[in-house]
Amino acid sequence: MKELVQLHKDQFIDELKEFLRIPSISALSEHKQDVQKAAEWLAGSLEKMGIENVEVIETKGHPIVYGDWLHAEGKPTVLVYGHYDVQPSVPLELWETPPFEPVIRDGKIFARGATDDKGQLMIHVKAAELLLKENNGELPVNLKFCIEGEEEVASPNLSPFIEENLTKLAADAVVISDTSFINKNQPAIATSLRGALALELKLTTANTDLHSGSYGGGVPNAVHSIIRLLDSMHDEKGKVAVEGFYQGVAEPTGELRKEVAEIPFDENSLKEELGIDELDGEEGFTFNERTGIRPTLEINGVGGGFTGEGLKTIVPGEAVAKISCRLVGEQDPDKVYESIQKHVERFKPAGSRVDIKKLIGAHPVSLNSNNPMIQKAADAYEKVYGVRPLFPKEGGSIPIVEVFARVLDAPVVLMGFGLNTENLHAPNEHFHLENYTKGIETVCNYLTSLSRELP
Amino acid sequence: MKELVQLHKDQFIDELKEFLRIPSISALSEHKQDVQKAAEWLAGSLEKMGIENVEVIETKGHPIVYGDWLHAEGKPTVLVYGHYDVQPSVPLELWETPPFEPVIRDGKIFARGATDDKGQLMIHVKAAELLLKENNGELPVNLKFCIEGEEEVASPNLSPFIEENLTKLAADAVVISDTSFINKNQPAIATSLRGALALELKLTTANTDLHSGSYGGGVPNAVHSIIRLLDSMHDEKGKVAVEGFYQGVAEPTGELRKEVAEIPFDENSLKEELGIDELDGEEGFTFNERTGIRPTLEINGVGGGFTGEGLKTIVPGEAVAKISCRLVGEQDPDKVYESIQKHVERFKPAGSRVDIKKLIGAHPVSLNSNNPMIQKAADAYEKVYGVRPLFPKEGGSIPIVEVFARVLDAPVVLMGFGLNTENLHAPNEHFHLENYTKGIETVCNYLTSLSRELP
Repeated sequence: MKELVQLHKDQFIDELKEFLRIPSISALSEHKQDVQKAAEWLAGSLEKMGIENVEVIETKGHPIVYGDWLHAEGKPTVLVYGHYDVQPSVPLELWETPPFEPVIRDGKIFARGATDDKGQLMIHVKAAELLLKENNGELPVNLKFCIEGEEEVASPNLSPFIEENLTKLAADAVVISDTSFINKNQPAIATSLRGALALELKLTTANTDLHSGSYGGGVPNAVHSIIRLLDSMHDEKGKVAVEGFYQGVAEPTGELRKEVAEIPFDENSLKEELGIDELDGEEGFTFNERTGIRPTLEINGVGGGFTGEGLKTIVPGEAVAKISCRLVGEQDPDKVYESIQKHVERFKPAGSRVDIKKLIGAHPVSLNSNNPMIQKAADAYEKVYGVRPLFPKEGGSIPIVEVFARVLDAPVVLMGFGLNTENLHAPNEHFHLENYTKGIETVCNYLTSLSRELP
Repeated sequence: MKELVQLHKDQFIDELKEFLRIPSISALSEHKQDVQKAAEWLAGSLEKMGIENVEVIETKGHPIVYGDWLHAEGKPTVLVYGHYDVQPSVPLELWETPPFEPVIRDGKIFARGATDDKGQLMIHVKAAELLLKENNGELPVNLKFCIEGEEEVASPNLSPFIEENLTKLAADAVVISDTSFINKNQPAIATSLRGALALELKLTTANTDLHSGSYGGGVPNAVHSIIRLLDSMHDEKGKVAVEGFYQGVAEPTGELRKEVAEIPFDENSLKEELGIDELDGEEGFTFNERTGIRPTLEINGVGGGFTGEGLKTIVPGEAVAKISCRLVGEQDPDKVYESIQKHVERFKPAGSRVDIKKLIGAHPVSLNSNNPMIQKAADAYEKVYGVRPLFPKEGGSIPIVEVFARVLDAPVVLMGFGLNTENLHAPNEHFHLENYTKGIETVCNYLTSLSRELP
């Protein structure tokens, strides 16, 4: 299998580059056509290689790409989920090369979406293509693709689509590659994902910016007010200070803490690589715990007044913030949202009017690593990488995982091929080409292994 | 005089519009040519009307426009200072009409620079033009114009120019129109100006933005850090919490407080007009005191992370803020800057690296309202408006006033014709045309009155 992948390597990379050139930023309405284009590109690809019933299914937002191959009678059915949309690319000036002009440097391909998720998604597309080509148009298992274009905006239309298409999507396993290795040498299959709640907050103190000479010190300043409000959301010990936030969060058991502690973590190399002087976070927990099994409230952005070149001596009349929370255990995104609303009403400084808008809500999810569909995936990794994957608690959220697991009642296998250091959601996002080719090999092995004996 | 001004009113307004169409934003390097163009437009205007020795004097930054008329032997010499540069116009979307396409609505002319300071500066240009025209090319006094293009970026090149041109600029009074009435019906000649200190602050926690799922809660967040740092700069009572900030600030005397209390202030109409729910500020002081005789520390802007459409679930690695202080009494801008530097070092959260850059430093200034050059200006207002001006403590800063007063050893007469409500430094800046024409009349009367008897 390895030789076969190597034989087609250049073609596989060229096709990934083609896919990466489409700026399918789902969050920005000006890119709506590009998102559509990426869906059509993907559908065309699937069709060409022999996947059947390929459709670009319109939704209220961006389309879902579906396709299947269902002729492996008596064999299991695998549903591959991924997303062809990408994060916005600002701040552009921090990219060494333009985000939508893929470039290879040091064995890595640099482009927005390289690791999240176009590169990882293409692993499954190319694995299927290779298997079809090598087996006279046959696959070892039944395969379905369900690829969305709204993952980066919280999948507003995929949940209803799943609920309405139970038969079409029914599967023995849902396979998703949108997570990360522990480090370059240690593959991982995540067995829990944190939930998420995201919101935006607009604070207004006046109907215009005011001259700071005439009004400064005498009227509320929207920036002063928002920083005081935002600062009230964490206490001195790094805990979230929103009343009710920790409801449903259990103290981690000794066993869980032990499991988390086994995930390698090199504080010094992390600090050096990211230019960080000191770690930070909730007192009493390790880095792995803080980022994997503890809930967080993170301000993703704040803006108000004038921050351009030079100076504007104004009292800002308006300020905005984006906030996202990672949730664990039994935390309910709706209840956390209510807690934050109450907190804002209670702690907003006098003279502030605050509008809050919910952007995302997703429940945490936990998967059983003993499921044979997961164990077989681990076998496939071990065969290719020579190392058996660990089963970490992933800090990120893939809101739809909980829906797949619950609605389709199928094990979800989180076969990540990314690295945490690949700048996902940041400038200079990239993907290690070694994991692209080894990933294709791993997935070929996995699908083939599933056909040998029913798990 | 009134009839004469009315006769030329349309021409005066057309010429102001022409001046306002030039986007002479001194803070933005992309507008360097526009600033130059405004200087040349102004110089051309002065030359055409009969002002002599007109020069566009290059500096390290934007040019100074000089011109004079010195044939009134035995009469006093008046130096008119003003500025032809304007503030940036962002946020553009809040302007009802474009900032550099002047439009008249309800007797007000809307454009960036309308009141600050092109409209007010043009009062002096047009007054001199009218006097020259009506008196066969003669003026009642000797007149000098010294107009800069860097007031909105803190006049970095004007102080040295004044120091090097003492003879050229020598005058019996420096007249400046860049301040405001108390309200529409109450003119004012400001007799103190607050000093200013402005700085920008960049806080870095990592060399890139990070994914909040993988790193959130485990590494420092530049936005969390900057809000905590900025929030530490004010206490619960609205006082500036920077150690040493109030050094040189005397408790206001009963007399001063009484004087300030006499300035009319209508809390309800201010709130209604500006959309403010509650006033704010230093406990124990009135609005007039807070904005006129007390020092302030105002955050003019803050930015970090993602605040665009949609969501980016990042841990921001960098955040910025702009801060400006208004200073009073014996506060020294250099010492206040040092206090803030020390505060930042002491209160910046662990894991933050902070760069501070000083943008502006200006001493407070106090003028004697009994000076005859000021009293004669008051007479001229009274003649035109039917009301004698008050002598308020102006909250704003015109850094160069202190330099004029000290270096030229001349009384500075702050003949303001603006209104505080004219959105200076904000979207929809405007200027009441009634004050434009009445201003020209007032200045004509003032200059004529100075020729009658040596003050």
